[in-house]
Amino acid sequence: MTVTAPKGFEAAGVAAGLKSTGKPDVAVVVNRGPLKVGAAVFTGNRAKANPILWSEQAIGDGVVEAIVLNSGGANCFTGAFGFQTTHATAEKAAELLGVSSGDVVVCSTGLIGSGDEVFRAKVLDGVEKGVAALSADGGQDAAAAIMTTDTVSKTAVHHGDGWTIGAMAKGAGMLAPGLATMLVVITTDAVLQAAQADAALRAATRTSFDRLDSDGCMSTNDQVTLLVSGASGRTPDPAAFAAALAQVCGELARKLQGDAEGASHDITIEVAHAASESDAVEVGRSVARNNLFKTAIFGNDPNWGRVLAAIGTTQAAFDPYDTDVWMNGVRVCTAGGPDAPREQVDLTPRATHVLIDLKSGPATATILTNDLTHDYVHENSAYSS
Amino acid sequence: MTVTAPKGFEAAGVAAGLKSTGKPDVAVVVNRGPLKVGAAVFTGNRAKANPILWSEQAIGDGVVEAIVLNSGGANCFTGAFGFQTTHATAEKAAELLGVSSGDVVVCSTGLIGSGDEVFRAKVLDGVEKGVAALSADGGQDAAAAIMTTDTVSKTAVHHGDGWTIGAMAKGAGMLAPGLATMLVVITTDAVLQAAQADAALRAATRTSFDRLDSDGCMSTNDQVTLLVSGASGRTPDPAAFAAALAQVCGELARKLQGDAEGASHDITIEVAHAASESDAVEVGRSVARNNLFKTAIFGNDPNWGRVLAAIGTTQAAFDPYDTDVWMNGVRVCTAGGPDAPREQVDLTPRATHVLIDLKSGPATATILTNDLTHDYVHENSAYSS
Repeated sequence: MTVTAPKGFEAAGVAAGLKSTGKPDVAVVVNRGPLKVGAAVFTGNRAKANPILWSEQAIGDGVVEAIVLNSGGANCFTGAFGFQTTHATAEKAAELLGVSSGDVVVCSTGLIGSGDEVFRAKVLDGVEKGVAALSADGGQDAAAAIMTTDTVSKTAVHHGDGWTIGAMAKGAGMLAPGLATMLVVITTDAVLQAAQADAALRAATRTSFDRLDSDGCMSTNDQVTLLVSGASGRTPDPAAFAAALAQVCGELARKLQGDAEGASHDITIEVAHAASESDAVEVGRSVARNNLFKTAIFGNDPNWGRVLAAIGTTQAAFDPYDTDVWMNGVRVCTAGGPDAPREQVDLTPRATHVLIDLKSGPATATILTNDLTHDYVHENSAYSS
Repeated sequence: MTVTAPKGFEAAGVAAGLKSTGKPDVAVVVNRGPLKVGAAVFTGNRAKANPILWSEQAIGDGVVEAIVLNSGGANCFTGAFGFQTTHATAEKAAELLGVSSGDVVVCSTGLIGSGDEVFRAKVLDGVEKGVAALSADGGQDAAAAIMTTDTVSKTAVHHGDGWTIGAMAKGAGMLAPGLATMLVVITTDAVLQAAQADAALRAATRTSFDRLDSDGCMSTNDQVTLLVSGASGRTPDPAAFAAALAQVCGELARKLQGDAEGASHDITIEVAHAASESDAVEVGRSVARNNLFKTAIFGNDPNWGRVLAAIGTTQAAFDPYDTDVWMNGVRVCTAGGPDAPREQVDLTPRATHVLIDLKSGPATATILTNDLTHDYVHENSAYSS
């Protein structure tokens, strides 16, 4: 059910010929209300795709009637023509749905630099087919239509006290959301006002998608959009809603990590006893982005020296000679030297846990990443994506 | 000849059993004077190896009589015992050479966390053999003894006006000198005082080794040491010496890049028209560290979108929609959109040139990097290093 699990939403996923495989590539999600509240967070990349430029404007008033998403082309760095394509996409959907184009958010994913006349014609055709196919159980079709190198569609549903959150996500590469070619649509039928929706979304993404750093590469097209219909008629306890939204985002972040391009390990880097949360994030991210650490994990090699070498490049408060490193429950480094023998660490399971104890304060953060494998190199060198 | 090309130096490279292959693994270089001037730059990594901790102290007075280098073990994160090993190494060399241990600089390279009793005994044995083998034409043996995953030894010689610079370097992985497991020893028989040697060395490394970013991973053991014997009796023009030293460092940086682990492309990233040199370096480094860019180049894919996506993560002054990207002489992106067709770009040569024109000012910088290949993943996952 995904994004159509909450009341008040219809969705569709259709094939418009953008993908050479002929698989579905255009998704439409419509909020039937009664509320038409929307909130979104966008890529922190300064090189932003045309749909990002458009959607940042459209979300300004906190009102979203519909969202159109396409795979098979990022429409990023496609010049003025590309922006007009996004505009035309919103206008087409608005016309067919009888709403204002300023209340239609657009998302695209695929190859940067792709978005010519043929692309535009196919997207507009997809919008027409998508709107015609809208249904109250179209969520799964929509989730399939936004997949690119994803091997599975990622969805999540949370049932609250009379209200529901539904969500879909895509993303397998260029996956370091600061806020990646990651697209997420979350829907809820809870009764929320725009400011509350925005605050809850920012809080939830900050500790979920923003802590996922699969390959260190921030996308030009990332967008997480929350659509609120209010159709349940129930006003949730704000803390309960925020917690539920954070749980949904965390679940999707784990699913993105689990399907990351070419990965053979899902690595959880837990940084404990940092002086501040930002220190903990900086330390976790420095390890997540270290190619020598990532290749070592691929090789099932508990090479903790590469962890220390990565942390040593940060500005975080810590004493390099009084830092503990644990791998899958075994303390391999303590007090500036080796601890338990490497042979005690079993890195064969896909789920890998690295604990870095900085002994410098009360803060903690967890970064999710993946190993660097032959399949990653193959997938990202064998063709343009 | 390498480090023994200038007058006043003797060197040796011997096998002390640190490398399982039995190849040479301990090098000794001795400055016979009359000057005993030394200058050094060290890794910017806060997790520093024991020989770095020692050498930072030893270089303080600008006097260096000898340098001992070992491959086959980094002696990093080996605790107090490891520091004592470095101390004992310097003392052993000092005793055999009849100098003060505070004037003996030590460098180590190899696996982090390795440096037990057996390691210490082998290093001390290597010092003994090395001092016994010292000769005025031992430079090439020394250069061979510091190799780890290097496939060739890297050396350079520059002949000035009556004076000479000789140099040797090692480094193939963990190669992002901020100042990498890169070790360099440069010798000269020019007459230089300590302050001038230090200034010339810092200037030369800043635009050579510090602009090499092969795999984004900064080592714990990097050290570049300049030894000045003054034995030519010639006092060089300071500008001429600085230029010669910069040229030698640049040549070695290119040799390190050319032998980087698993690389199939040597990529020169030239950033032009930046607002400042630091902006140019930040932009160049962001691209050099982008795994999607690096895998694309491995695949001979002129995927310029990944260049823009990398630049977009920086704080540099530039307009993402008015930036040109050239690959091997073909302008593939301009004004926020595609320019020449990708098919025009031939990325099959090992030498690859990427020009990023930020159109934001007068500054420029060039970063040297490599592609991300199956061989890199294999070499760094198949065994601990």
